[in-house]
Amino acid sequence: MRIYTLGGFSEVGRNMTAVEVGREVVIIDMGYHMDKIIGMSDEEREAPLPELRKQGAIPDDTPLKGKNVIAIVVSHGHLDHLGAVPKMADNYPKAPIIVTPYTAEVLKRMAKEEGRSHINNRIVSLKHNTPKNIGKNFSVELVYVTHSIPHSAMVLLRTKEGNVAYLNDFKIDFTPTLEQPFQKQYFKKIGKEGIKVLLMESLRADETSRSSSEKIAKEMLKDVVNRAYQESKNNAVIVSTFSSHIARIKAAIDINKGRREVIMLGRSLKLYTGAAADLGLLDRSKVRVHTKRKSIINVLKEVEKDKEKYLLITTGNQGEYDAVLTRMARGEYPFNWNKNDEVIISSNPIPHPVNIAQRYVLERMLRERNVRIIDGVHASGHARKEDLRDIIRWLNPEILIPSHGYLAKTSALAEVAMQEGYELGKNVLLSTNGKVWDIKKG
Amino acid sequence: MRIYTLGGFSEVGRNMTAVEVGREVVIIDMGYHMDKIIGMSDEEREAPLPELRKQGAIPDDTPLKGKNVIAIVVSHGHLDHLGAVPKMADNYPKAPIIVTPYTAEVLKRMAKEEGRSHINNRIVSLKHNTPKNIGKNFSVELVYVTHSIPHSAMVLLRTKEGNVAYLNDFKIDFTPTLEQPFQKQYFKKIGKEGIKVLLMESLRADETSRSSSEKIAKEMLKDVVNRAYQESKNNAVIVSTFSSHIARIKAAIDINKGRREVIMLGRSLKLYTGAAADLGLLDRSKVRVHTKRKSIINVLKEVEKDKEKYLLITTGNQGEYDAVLTRMARGEYPFNWNKNDEVIISSNPIPHPVNIAQRYVLERMLRERNVRIIDGVHASGHARKEDLRDIIRWLNPEILIPSHGYLAKTSALAEVAMQEGYELGKNVLLSTNGKVWDIKKG
Amino acid sequence: MRIYTLGGFSEVGRNMTAVEVGREVVIIDMGYHMDKIIGMSDEEREAPLPELRKQGAIPDDTPLKGKNVIAIVVSHGHLDHLGAVPKMADNYPKAPIIVTPYTAEVLKRMAKEEGRSHINNRIVSLKHNTPKNIGKNFSVELVYVTHSIPHSAMVLLRTKEGNVAYLNDFKIDFTPTLEQPFQKQYFKKIGKEGIKVLLMESLRADETSRSSSEKIAKEMLKDVVNRAYQESKNNAVIVSTFSSHIARIKAAIDINKGRREVIMLGRSLKLYTGAAADLGLLDRSKVRVHTKRKSIINVLKEVEKDKEKYLLITTGNQGEYDAVLTRMARGEYPFNWNKNDEVIISSNPIPHPVNIAQRYVLERMLRERNVRIIDGVHASGHARKEDLRDIIRWLNPEILIPSHGYLAKTSALAEVAMQEGYELGKNVLLSTNGKVWDIKKG
Amino acid sequence: MRIYTLGGFSEVGRNMTAVEVGREVVIIDMGYHMDKIIGMSDEEREAPLPELRKQGAIPDDTPLKGKNVIAIVVSHGHLDHLGAVPKMADNYPKAPIIVTPYTAEVLKRMAKEEGRSHINNRIVSLKHNTPKNIGKNFSVELVYVTHSIPHSAMVLLRTKEGNVAYLNDFKIDFTPTLEQPFQKQYFKKIGKEGIKVLLMESLRADETSRSSSEKIAKEMLKDVVNRAYQESKNNAVIVSTFSSHIARIKAAIDINKGRREVIMLGRSLKLYTGAAADLGLLDRSKVRVHTKRKSIINVLKEVEKDKEKYLLITTGNQGEYDAVLTRMARGEYPFNWNKNDEVIISSNPIPHPVNIAQRYVLERMLRERNVRIIDGVHASGHARKEDLRDIIRWLNPEILIPSHGYLAKTSALAEVAMQEGYELGKNVLLSTNGKVWDIKKG
Repeated sequence: MRIYTLGGFSEVGRNMTAVEVGREVVIIDMGYHMDKIIGMSDEEREAPLPELRKQGAIPDDTPLKGKNVIAIVVSHGHLDHLGAVPKMADNYPKAPIIVTPYTAEVLKRMAKEEGRSHINNRIVSLKHNTPKNIGKNFSVELVYVTHSIPHSAMVLLRTKEGNVAYLNDFKIDFTPTLEQPFQKQYFKKIGKEGIKVLLMESLRADETSRSSSEKIAKEMLKDVVNRAYQESKNNAVIVSTFSSHIARIKAAIDINKGRREVIMLGRSLKLYTGAAADLGLLDRSKVRVHTKRKSIINVLKEVEKDKEKYLLITTGNQGEYDAVLTRMARGEYPFNWNKNDEVIISSNPIPHPVNIAQRYVLERMLRERNVRIIDGVHASGHARKEDLRDIIRWLNPEILIPSHGYLAKTSALAEVAMQEGYELGKNVLLSTNGKVWDIKKG
Repeated sequence: MRIYTLGGFSEVGRNMTAVEVGREVVIIDMGYHMDKIIGMSDEEREAPLPELRKQGAIPDDTPLKGKNVIAIVVSHGHLDHLGAVPKMADNYPKAPIIVTPYTAEVLKRMAKEEGRSHINNRIVSLKHNTPKNIGKNFSVELVYVTHSIPHSAMVLLRTKEGNVAYLNDFKIDFTPTLEQPFQKQYFKKIGKEGIKVLLMESLRADETSRSSSEKIAKEMLKDVVNRAYQESKNNAVIVSTFSSHIARIKAAIDINKGRREVIMLGRSLKLYTGAAADLGLLDRSKVRVHTKRKSIINVLKEVEKDKEKYLLITTGNQGEYDAVLTRMARGEYPFNWNKNDEVIISSNPIPHPVNIAQRYVLERMLRERNVRIIDGVHASGHARKEDLRDIIRWLNPEILIPSHGYLAKTSALAEVAMQEGYELGKNVLLSTNGKVWDIKKG
Repeated sequence: MRIYTLGGFSEVGRNMTAVEVGREVVIIDMGYHMDKIIGMSDEEREAPLPELRKQGAIPDDTPLKGKNVIAIVVSHGHLDHLGAVPKMADNYPKAPIIVTPYTAEVLKRMAKEEGRSHINNRIVSLKHNTPKNIGKNFSVELVYVTHSIPHSAMVLLRTKEGNVAYLNDFKIDFTPTLEQPFQKQYFKKIGKEGIKVLLMESLRADETSRSSSEKIAKEMLKDVVNRAYQESKNNAVIVSTFSSHIARIKAAIDINKGRREVIMLGRSLKLYTGAAADLGLLDRSKVRVHTKRKSIINVLKEVEKDKEKYLLITTGNQGEYDAVLTRMARGEYPFNWNKNDEVIISSNPIPHPVNIAQRYVLERMLRERNVRIIDGVHASGHARKEDLRDIIRWLNPEILIPSHGYLAKTSALAEVAMQEGYELGKNVLLSTNGKVWDIKKG
Repeated sequence: MRIYTLGGFSEVGRNMTAVEVGREVVIIDMGYHMDKIIGMSDEEREAPLPELRKQGAIPDDTPLKGKNVIAIVVSHGHLDHLGAVPKMADNYPKAPIIVTPYTAEVLKRMAKEEGRSHINNRIVSLKHNTPKNIGKNFSVELVYVTHSIPHSAMVLLRTKEGNVAYLNDFKIDFTPTLEQPFQKQYFKKIGKEGIKVLLMESLRADETSRSSSEKIAKEMLKDVVNRAYQESKNNAVIVSTFSSHIARIKAAIDINKGRREVIMLGRSLKLYTGAAADLGLLDRSKVRVHTKRKSIINVLKEVEKDKEKYLLITTGNQGEYDAVLTRMARGEYPFNWNKNDEVIISSNPIPHPVNIAQRYVLERMLRERNVRIIDGVHASGHARKEDLRDIIRWLNPEILIPSHGYLAKTSALAEVAMQEGYELGKNVLLSTNGKVWDIKKG
């Protein structure tokens, strides 16, 4: 068995791994490097593949040239795992794209709504925990995990040379608010079946303790929304979070309990919540959604007249220049802000200098308009040190390859593994992009 | 009216303020400077008053020499507000000490259990929201507030020259887990009655947003305790928090739901939970409490035999050298630690270099014994920027004096006040220790 | 006497103060708020005055409406002190602009080279330490101080109601590399003459110790340039620093000692070094200077052929998007980078999120081209805590008003003053933008 | 060839490595884990070897049991490299201790002055750059490097199976102030001879740029001492730095130029400067040195009478509880501090929580006595990223093993190596304590 660590092993982003058994290759994830993408113009993002690869915006899949790729499996719908599919899947025209239903829906909408990408590959929607044979050598299962977007999965590839588990982007949440709890017993069962190689995220391996449940975030959001409603008579309340964070968006709607009319503003909100609505994950029936400049301006005029009748959910939690909240703060979308208005940012800034600067500028503009900012209303979707230790104990893999990070991150997970008895270089392997690991049978 | 800002205006700690109207003086709080106290030996703490004053361990009350002090009012039972009472109250033998019932109970036990201090002054236990006349010029009311110790109060002094509110140590919690919610309407009513001067804490005035409810901390604790119980078969689970944080301790007991026997270890735990139990704030009837070296060692031997039968609640959340958890980690109290044991630290390190070092050493010792550390399970008891803004809007004081902090902290609260229309030097006053403010009637 | 604290008392930037005695007003400084200016497009910077004022990009001088402004004095040539002159001086058509010769030269070039601003006011070039009467009530002296741009000055206004000293932007450097040492004895003499009010910068009042001499920066630069020359055979060495930092630029040229041909690239370099050359502060006779896209590209082609013959000095030390170094790193100016090339950044990032992001992006681009980055080769031009204490002891002002900072900064200087015996609110005054201070004679 | 990475590969401290060729073993370094030692009482430090090993205070040399150890080579005199020799060398009674002359002198004095340790092994003093055969398979050379203690060396072991270089604790200083410059050409020559394995420190591999020369620190010190002399009429000037930093201590004496009498206070100062004086590295002939409580108190009484006649050099730069400066600050050594006294701390706090706390307490005590603190007068003795890259390019080793750090540090050096074309796991090896590396001949 060979494992190609193609992207996301030298940075946080552009995740891509490939597994080869008996002349068949399965690709897992094809993501964007968001740090790079953020700074690009629309044109630059449309550059030809080799240019994007050179810029480091997408993974470098050249080691797979000439290989017999039989499937592309994507773990979940975040852009650092899914984003490059529309661009790169053409390189593997015969490979179906195997994803959970929500990811499939997102992928289709991305292609359609943006009008700029076609996906010619067949999209196969596979339910959680349902093994499916592909090619002669593989069975793929999308094992349910909790994360910050619906239908996330650990990719489990069963082969005659051993099982490979790819666990990128998850947390262990026993009290989630949208889907079912993390299935610890099922993980232990998979562990007993035997895992040859586990690739696991290391993003927060350097943080002590365990990650908080989404339930905590919902309770925090409830508290701040209720207080905002109490305090702000006839004034605006705006919630902004990641557009793909359906659980959080649903929380806002649930907490509102019909007290105000919910209006969503922003293109990506439409995309992700639309996909969720179609699959019954979110009831958007009473929610107006606007994405076009003109209609947004009109809606804001309407809202201004009687602010306390509305709960706005907008894009812009990271201060993205073109997002609705940022435009409102900048005055590009006119809005009669006042000192009782409250903007609830239900996320943390992604810890990257460009993001931090964007968030800073957003908050400064809001402060200058005397808006009250309630930030940090959040629980991360990523596992921390003690969660990762739990997984190692449950899955008990023969070999661990830390992923989703540069060396400082992956080595932090290696430390945890060493505390659990693993030995560096022997059964915990620190990789980098472009490396090929030969995994022996024994 | 004169206001003496005696302690806690040039540092975080040793809080003390005095209000003079018509030749009568009321003192509010007499606290320790914990940063100083931490580094002292028991002997040094027993030094004579002038030495302790010189060391900065207690407030400097010399400006009150010869004044007619008619009462000492203490806002709540934390040592930076209450600690110096046993030492300094003797200076004002005729002044009764006016406190809420829990604070009274704590004060009595402190004197008794430590066997080293006598309090000769009369202790007057006054219920929340019940005005009481003192002297000719004052009426005192202990207005209920939510904080991290029971029976906390805003001290409200009504005088013919205007009302003074002293709001040190509080948060606005509408979903607390022990006592009743913060009484916003009552605060607004007090505001309408008119506040001449508000002294308000500025400890976290430089932090955005609002503080989280204790409910959030309870939910977090529930999650980590449940996971610890699940993961650690026949292994130890230890919770450590502030001994005076009765709500948190009660949360641990409630979450346990009788699944394990709860044992408390440590002197200060006995003191604060004992006072709470006597007042019906905490059911400690099924809890064993041990404070002596020998009995602690015996209990730990018992626990070792069948760890999964016990939930230990111990002192040592800040890594204090002499606390039970620290002694256990150091091996001074022998305990057969193993890699499944979990220590849940339900607090954050107090952000002071000496504390941070102590916590670091504790965690290192635990890590070296392969114990799993779950930290940060906490919600602060102090108001943040938007809470403080709420209070300013509700109480609408004529004059604001930021307290409980050095200039960097108090000026952060001044910033908030200026955003609310106050003018620096005119109606928001930055003070320092030892300053006397003449407040004009008009 | 009245002092108007118009700008730079609620932020770092847009410095402006005015002093009124006997119906005459003297303005000191008219600066840009760089944080705001950085984020603006060229168009936005050309907005009408009221819009710029509303954006917070320039000081709000409305309190001076109708006042008899008899002079505008500018302390030195940095944009946060000088930048708004071309825009705002028109409001005071009769007021001459009084500046030291270098500042005069910079001002003229700014107007001319940018082709967009006319300065109709008379520009009066006044040598250091030479008092000059203005109006009936003022004598102005530009007292020599060391800073990071030539001809910096403390503005000293002598009036019958007392002397006002304005000491914004300075450090105490006894071993500078360009002009003469800081004149401590002269400051003490001025102190003995008596200072009614001192306005002094507080930018680094929260940093312990004293600031390092420019000599240290020169030694550091010497070391890294020499090592770069040694290591990089036939490869590029690029130095980037603030364009107005003539001492540093001269240091680079001196250190080079003719070993390589020095070429300067960038518009602002031309402006500031041109002014310096004209006044004999810098020998630029052997230095080629290029500012236009085409000629820069041609020069870079020439350099590529034989890199070790050239020392490039470029704009872009803060990663400004349009600066030469940034364009080279981005590939917009083609350059054949290799792994032996060294970029020496002789400055620190200005601690503002937008700057930090720009610097990060610059460094990432350079790293991706395998360029060696030598940063932090710098000594700040601003006084730290112990320097500020020295000034207080030397000038011994009756009243101190900390300036050049928001409350967290100004209160840090107030702390120092209090340690020196000043009393908050009495003789150390914390101000904010738009405040008017009546200074009594006594 | 076998390499045993025994200590300092899982932490910063207790450095120890061993190299085995043809049944002979050479040990390099036997250091203390200072983080552990700091927190121990004198008694605890005298615990038997197995206890100290268990505590992690000394390296675990059990993998060498039964091996034929023919020499112990120590790279330099710092305690994290040398400290455990008196305790552990007995395990290898036949092995001579091979060190440079200064290190030899320090070792002898440590044994003698502390009166508690005997070193029975033969101490062999070997000059820099002089190969010496040991056993049948090794030639050892102590290659001169610049660092912050005299006579530091890269240990170079030449064997028939290839050369091993051990480069722990160095910087590249071309303008040092005590010994000769770093010998780049000699390093390149060694590189050409061929290096099989390089073990190199990674302590500051995560910091950009190159380290500053000691010359910079001397210039900084000169500036602050001169300013202190100018400002402080008849007042104390105290310099505190690492006792082993002879170059810095010599700088203080040189800068003083006989203007004041130099007095040294503290035991470790006597030890390290005594060794330096004996070898002609420091002229201590006009310097009084005191180490005993009584004589220190007497000297301080003398100094108080006419402070401006003395320059005190004391221990305590890290705020160590028992050091002279700390005792003076605490009032344990009485001293009539005043507001003109200046304490110059010519070091940075070692970035460890316990150190940071000690330094904080020291500074707080000094501040409370109104002493002026001038800190940060320092240049580190350790190589940064671009220095480490230089070494890799000059020595061009076949295999690199990053040392002197835990995984986060060693992986940062691995990153640099990968940028230079090395491949993780192939020729850059991340190790941990207790690992044995078989190095193949080819």
